[in-house]
Amino acid sequence: MTGFPGVKALVFDVFGTVVDWREGVAREAAPFLARHGRGDLDPRAFADAWRKRYQPGMEECRSGRRPFTRLDVLHRENLEAVLQDNGMDPATVGEAALDDLNRAWHRLDPWPEAVAGLTRLRRKYILAPLSNGNIALLLNMAKRAGLPWDAILGAEVAQAYKPDPQAYLRTAEVLGIRPDELCLVAAHNGDLRAARAAGLATAFVLRPGEHGPGQKTDTRAEDPWDVVARDFQDLAHQLGL
Amino acid sequence: MTGFPGVKALVFDVFGTVVDWREGVAREAAPFLARHGRGDLDPRAFADAWRKRYQPGMEECRSGRRPFTRLDVLHRENLEAVLQDNGMDPATVGEAALDDLNRAWHRLDPWPEAVAGLTRLRRKYILAPLSNGNIALLLNMAKRAGLPWDAILGAEVAQAYKPDPQAYLRTAEVLGIRPDELCLVAAHNGDLRAARAAGLATAFVLRPGEHGPGQKTDTRAEDPWDVVARDFQDLAHQLGL
Repeated sequence: MTGFPGVKALVFDVFGTVVDWREGVAREAAPFLARHGRGDLDPRAFADAWRKRYQPGMEECRSGRRPFTRLDVLHRENLEAVLQDNGMDPATVGEAALDDLNRAWHRLDPWPEAVAGLTRLRRKYILAPLSNGNIALLLNMAKRAGLPWDAILGAEVAQAYKPDPQAYLRTAEVLGIRPDELCLVAAHNGDLRAARAAGLATAFVLRPGEHGPGQKTDTRAEDPWDVVARDFQDLAHQLGL
Repeated sequence: MTGFPGVKALVFDVFGTVVDWREGVAREAAPFLARHGRGDLDPRAFADAWRKRYQPGMEECRSGRRPFTRLDVLHRENLEAVLQDNGMDPATVGEAALDDLNRAWHRLDPWPEAVAGLTRLRRKYILAPLSNGNIALLLNMAKRAGLPWDAILGAEVAQAYKPDPQAYLRTAEVLGIRPDELCLVAAHNGDLRAARAAGLATAFVLRPGEHGPGQKTDTRAEDPWDVVARDFQDLAHQLGL
């Protein structure tokens, strides 16, 4: 494999594929919980609980029950719910501390080889996130981590959350290219299935540590994706870079 | 002046402020016109005529007579009209040649000091275009010219053309900041007036060659803008960079 003929742009799932959300959120949750008298809680379990509310929050928008609402707002609502699940009162915590912890999602670290791999891939392809994260979140993350995106795309630009087909199709349209000239890179088989159904090319990248030790989902490519790579450096290599 | 207190992001007008649209369009119009038997036409006058249809095209969208339509489409319609004004038949020219010339707007060169100035400014500020150009146009331009944007913003993201207040206000909202934390950098007093009315900070940069020799508009700062700079290097200097 020395490249997909015709592919002009690579768009990336971000949470789990480019950055390690679990360790990043846990790193900031730990001192937050300690400051608010709940040093007994496991910060990784806290991160998992927060993330567990991610799909249901977006589903309200995907179903049309709620207008499109950016992820920072959903994350904040979900944070308050997780605090309440643990017997903590968001009002006591206070706005400033809630806002600051909510922005932990803006400060996630990339997987170790991600920036180097993206930098290689950018020599040949247009690169952008195609994430459910909102523009400010993805921009702040990129600025902090040095992610070399050519543009910040995703759900907020498309006004549709993955795996809604419009999230993929409108991203191609905004880039001025056909769906088959666009490739989604993701560590999640479900995201790639939706992208393929919309006509995109697909690249699976293995991230076996996304959910910590003992991860049971997305431990292998479940369908014959156009490329299957160990990481972004391997992806760059397989694409002839 | 060593910076605006509180300003977090600089957003830039692009056509005329960052890039020289007149010379760039003329450079590509010249061989196009020669190939189609109209080497007698002045390519700079052709560029001016094309640009003259820019505001009326957007006004259809601003007024609500037409849904928001991205600039690549308006540029293409305006190109066909300019050809017809010169007695040329777009159908004879053909789709491929029309598309290629239309993308001259994706291949404009920056003013000589623009990339170096932006690179300095980016050390302290979030940088993005706030242009009426669409995302693909601005992305392709940035990739070719090396413009170091943190994100591609503007009319297509805001779904509103400047000087509609929503173009400025939605850009601040997408960045997750207040309007007064956002500064518009532009070579056009009218753009800055609309930005100031929406609550943004303002920086005027002089581009006396935008319209060629004998330029009569925007030859000076007409209002007391927060910063008035000779070029982007001077802007970086005045902002303490």
